[in-house]
Amino acid sequence: MPTLDALAIANELADAAQRHSLPHFRTAIDVITKADDSPVTMADRAAEAAMREVLARRVPGHGILGEEHGRERLDADHVWVLDPIDGTKSFITGSPLWGTLIALVHQGRVALGMVDMPVLGERWVGRPGLGASRNGEAVRASGCTALAQARIFTTSPDMFSAGQWQAFDTLSRRCALRRFGGDCYSYAQLAGGTADLVVEAGLQPYDYMALVGLVEAAGGVITDWEGKPLTLASAGHVAAAATAALHRQALEVLATAA
Amino acid sequence: MPTLDALAIANELADAAQRHSLPHFRTAIDVITKADDSPVTMADRAAEAAMREVLARRVPGHGILGEEHGRERLDADHVWVLDPIDGTKSFITGSPLWGTLIALVHQGRVALGMVDMPVLGERWVGRPGLGASRNGEAVRASGCTALAQARIFTTSPDMFSAGQWQAFDTLSRRCALRRFGGDCYSYAQLAGGTADLVVEAGLQPYDYMALVGLVEAAGGVITDWEGKPLTLASAGHVAAAATAALHRQALEVLATAA
Repeated sequence: MPTLDALAIANELADAAQRHSLPHFRTAIDVITKADDSPVTMADRAAEAAMREVLARRVPGHGILGEEHGRERLDADHVWVLDPIDGTKSFITGSPLWGTLIALVHQGRVALGMVDMPVLGERWVGRPGLGASRNGEAVRASGCTALAQARIFTTSPDMFSAGQWQAFDTLSRRCALRRFGGDCYSYAQLAGGTADLVVEAGLQPYDYMALVGLVEAAGGVITDWEGKPLTLASAGHVAAAATAALHRQALEVLATAA
Repeated sequence: MPTLDALAIANELADAAQRHSLPHFRTAIDVITKADDSPVTMADRAAEAAMREVLARRVPGHGILGEEHGRERLDADHVWVLDPIDGTKSFITGSPLWGTLIALVHQGRVALGMVDMPVLGERWVGRPGLGASRNGEAVRASGCTALAQARIFTTSPDMFSAGQWQAFDTLSRRCALRRFGGDCYSYAQLAGGTADLVVEAGLQPYDYMALVGLVEAAGGVITDWEGKPLTLASAGHVAAAATAALHRQALEVLATAA
């Protein structure tokens, strides 16, 4: 049995997605309202279909969990988790901060996480145990261990329930700097050492599994708000930190403030 | 007397700023806390100094208002308004959404507004009466005339007082989509037709004068929250809209909700 070249497949997946997403950026495209009310575009669906074609050709026995076209063979040893356009609201409003998220999960653990940013021309890859990189250059999370020095990110106050917002608000006001916006890119900033905390809620597995691979490979810690590992079955409340010490402090504040 | 080639000078200014800002992006740089508590970098100061050298050589009689190095000859017919790095918080956290803002004010009115985005490689220029462009390609604000269809942006809830936040919150909940983050780039999105409203508070003249030139040249409307023109003496509460009808509705909600 040949070795599985996960990185080569992930690169092929990202290239395939990009061919279907980038040409539609800033052009007039249909905005479809899905059941969950998030906007999604023709580009999104075409990009995921192209990625599934790659997997069907390269690794037909692997499982797939995708945002647009559902799930196949989730009991397989290897499962690919795909979000063709994370940050569809950025995409449809002409912001460059949308990305393609790709994760390879092997027997329940993330073996590879990729955040590809087509407009920025940045491909972030993390392979736990093998390190993280941006366009092939090694990156690493910061060494920040204190909330008072931490730069904290979240995409929007609107992702939180009232209680969750109170917890995030309390936590973020104890940090050095808080910033909104960013979607998946905030986790890339964390992996690159220019952000220290990202706290979000209500993410889907196709949103967070790639982020788990990237953040862990960069030396950071990423779990749910209770410190439990993020799996395909998690509720999607994500707390990512540059260091274990910072992560522990953040979780303590989230638990007491909620 | 030779014609004033404002665009050529603005391009030269943006190029000069970029030479001093871009090399420091994502590198370890000193973060200095100014009196107003905003982070600012060595790059910021060096970039503005380089821009002032260009103006001293090209148009020594013109006035200058800059973020970092103060004001000169504000009573001159022509005044250049400079912000070398708008979005310093983005800059120091590795986000590409920071820009250089350049405005030429002639006898109190903005004749040119430029938003240069070095990481994105996008230069947005507006000359009221002559149109707006991104990298030389014409852009135009959307035709959105109804709040319920509008995509509204602001950088952060933290820029508002409690009353201002209540007004923004009320307004934005009546829109189709609200997004946070973006700094100056939100106004570029408005000029490019992918955002419809931007509402912010507490901006400085070096923040908003370039935006006035870009938004007006793209066919949009940009004033303070009371509908008064933004000048070098304004309080910096900015309401920008793709159309006059949308602008009027936004101001009505802001006035009643505050």
